[in-house]
Amino acid sequence: MALDPKRAVSELKELRSLTGDANGAQRVAWTDTWLKAREWFASKLRDLPVTHHYDSAGNNWVTLAGDSEKSLLIGGHLDSVPNGGWLDGSLNVLAGLEILRRISTQYNGKPPVTVKLVDWADEEGARFGRSLLGSSAFAGTASVEADRVRTDRDGTKMEDALRRCGVEMDRFGEATEGQKNAAAYIELHIEQGPVLEKMNIPLATVLGTKGVERHAITFHGQEAHSGSTPMNARRDALAAAAKLALEIRTIAGKHSDSVCTMGSVKTFPGIVTAVVGRCETALDQRDLDPAVLAQMYREAREASERFAREEKCTVEWLRIWSIEPIAFHPRLLDLCDTAICEVTRAGKAHRMPSGPLHDAAEVSRAGTPTVMMFVQSLGGISHNKVEDTKEEHLELCVAAFDRLASKAMEFVQQGA
Amino acid sequence: MALDPKRAVSELKELRSLTGDANGAQRVAWTDTWLKAREWFASKLRDLPVTHHYDSAGNNWVTLAGDSEKSLLIGGHLDSVPNGGWLDGSLNVLAGLEILRRISTQYNGKPPVTVKLVDWADEEGARFGRSLLGSSAFAGTASVEADRVRTDRDGTKMEDALRRCGVEMDRFGEATEGQKNAAAYIELHIEQGPVLEKMNIPLATVLGTKGVERHAITFHGQEAHSGSTPMNARRDALAAAAKLALEIRTIAGKHSDSVCTMGSVKTFPGIVTAVVGRCETALDQRDLDPAVLAQMYREAREASERFAREEKCTVEWLRIWSIEPIAFHPRLLDLCDTAICEVTRAGKAHRMPSGPLHDAAEVSRAGTPTVMMFVQSLGGISHNKVEDTKEEHLELCVAAFDRLASKAMEFVQQGA
Repeated sequence: MALDPKRAVSELKELRSLTGDANGAQRVAWTDTWLKAREWFASKLRDLPVTHHYDSAGNNWVTLAGDSEKSLLIGGHLDSVPNGGWLDGSLNVLAGLEILRRISTQYNGKPPVTVKLVDWADEEGARFGRSLLGSSAFAGTASVEADRVRTDRDGTKMEDALRRCGVEMDRFGEATEGQKNAAAYIELHIEQGPVLEKMNIPLATVLGTKGVERHAITFHGQEAHSGSTPMNARRDALAAAAKLALEIRTIAGKHSDSVCTMGSVKTFPGIVTAVVGRCETALDQRDLDPAVLAQMYREAREASERFAREEKCTVEWLRIWSIEPIAFHPRLLDLCDTAICEVTRAGKAHRMPSGPLHDAAEVSRAGTPTVMMFVQSLGGISHNKVEDTKEEHLELCVAAFDRLASKAMEFVQQGA
Repeated sequence: MALDPKRAVSELKELRSLTGDANGAQRVAWTDTWLKAREWFASKLRDLPVTHHYDSAGNNWVTLAGDSEKSLLIGGHLDSVPNGGWLDGSLNVLAGLEILRRISTQYNGKPPVTVKLVDWADEEGARFGRSLLGSSAFAGTASVEADRVRTDRDGTKMEDALRRCGVEMDRFGEATEGQKNAAAYIELHIEQGPVLEKMNIPLATVLGTKGVERHAITFHGQEAHSGSTPMNARRDALAAAAKLALEIRTIAGKHSDSVCTMGSVKTFPGIVTAVVGRCETALDQRDLDPAVLAQMYREAREASERFAREEKCTVEWLRIWSIEPIAFHPRLLDLCDTAICEVTRAGKAHRMPSGPLHDAAEVSRAGTPTVMMFVQSLGGISHNKVEDTKEEHLELCVAAFDRLASKAMEFVQQGA
């Protein structure tokens, strides 16, 4: 079969009908709806000369064996957040499926190198708060002991929910076997931000994923009566936090692609008749440059201590999570540029870092040469039922990603 | 019996043992512990030539009949917040009891004017969120229809909880009968703030209770991905709220006794991976001068709209509650000054407004000449188990309040 980008779009719509509702996509990993999506996907493989198996972390590997065992990996994820969008993760998988059809037809079922399409398990971490679960097992960076006792809102343990889907966390370590013969990894994704739409550009080459510093920052002041405590006698934890909420914008603004976000503020006792005695905030900082990320973290920390002093409060920092910046493979970046230019007829491809994390970050950490391609998002909105991309851009990205797949197969072949 | 301030302190401790636990006072109105406190208090009346009855709103009136029916009212409340302090409300009642003993002895059970000690029901509003309940029924300002459907945390309706204590909300209106012959009202209270301790002054005359403007202020921005949304493409509702949290200090700072408090901030979706799309805040503003209060409200509102514009957000204001400033009676203010000076031997009494509301505000609204006396609080802390006042100051305030009672009786007699 020749590449048919319209078919990929049509299959995305089919999946949306099957696994979404009025509130959006409901393919949360380790739920029945997710299993239904995977079953539907398996049914699409029947007429292809491929084999597929689930590895020990629940990743679904679809293999089109080639003359060489050296493999090109194409990745995506069928799981979504609750009330999610129709494209995040699924576009990658269904574009990959369409490309598998084209390659299989072109080479009569036996391409020069092996091509594997991977549907990673639980990229979103929506149910247990642990994202990139399957790809971290592949990379050997999974934190099984810390994760197995995680619970969902209903108190179900992560370990038990996975077992119900046939996955034993004790055997996560075996998923690193997937690294064998993996010679390149490519992933297509919607941008999930407003940049490409504002620039009026459909596609971009992704330089890498930004590193993240994520901290819980708590200011301690003194709870006091709103009516009886003069302004100059207060130790207002909210005031210190408010200063930091504004200062992080200055800190991020010194660099072109940096972001700093205070996404959560909680006030205690949190009643209108009391000055805030304790204010818990959460800060997320991201940049592609490790030095910039370190500088932003340092500046935020120093600012928080200054604000605490000014407000006669104290402050404590607790690292929630961090990941280093991941730069993608230089040669694959060039191939992605070329693929985009061939399809869009632009003279030059736009390059940008990814703020959101993707499975590609874990694969790249494992040492597999990696690149990602972005397609424009409408309104910069994702993880929401209104998440969307123009249909012409969806078709365009499948075509460009197919070109990238061909070039990446040559890259694998040359390296083999 | 001669006035014995030490006995009042000792009875306060007795009440604390009976109705407190390791977390503080537990005399929440309409609970068994509160009923137990009232039963204990009734037992203290046995040897006095007084009658007592509960009015239709549950206020307990202890009457020492005099030659004239014109009455001096002395007020307080035995109810507390959960995990509250031992003095807030109870000091007033037990100082009043000690003064009743002294007056009764001095006049052989028949003073020239009638003296009534009132234990107001549910001053704190801790269980149903409706403070000054009993005194507002006395004043005829009770909002029965709005209040009867209030529920506590367990879903119990206010109307049902009151009925269990023998109070029918339908009959609240009858409580205004208490106004008959009420010619003066005096109330003693701990300051609940740090002002007197900082000035090293034990007692103060209270000018009145500050008016309150209380609003829910919600900023609406755009929820967006923390990683993929450039700083300049954000509509961060938290940023607008943070600006307001800081600006209210400037607004209050223009006036000597004004306070503005943002006691609660809630962020939505409230996760570290999303820019805050909606930020709900609560603002409390207080001043004794109606013009200042109106100006502060206007300035906060204008500032919020400016910040919303700057952050490409919108803002909406919803009035939660408000009360006008209440100025106490000029002649009673003078008498309170004199009483304080006689006992402390200071040349001049300190005068200050009360930021917290008190039952005195409702009584004054009803047209009864009113004044309050404050005694120093330690650390400015109240509504907490560590709420405290030096024992020498407790004794001093009972003595000074007794002097005020005598002077207020003369005031009543002169007016009769």
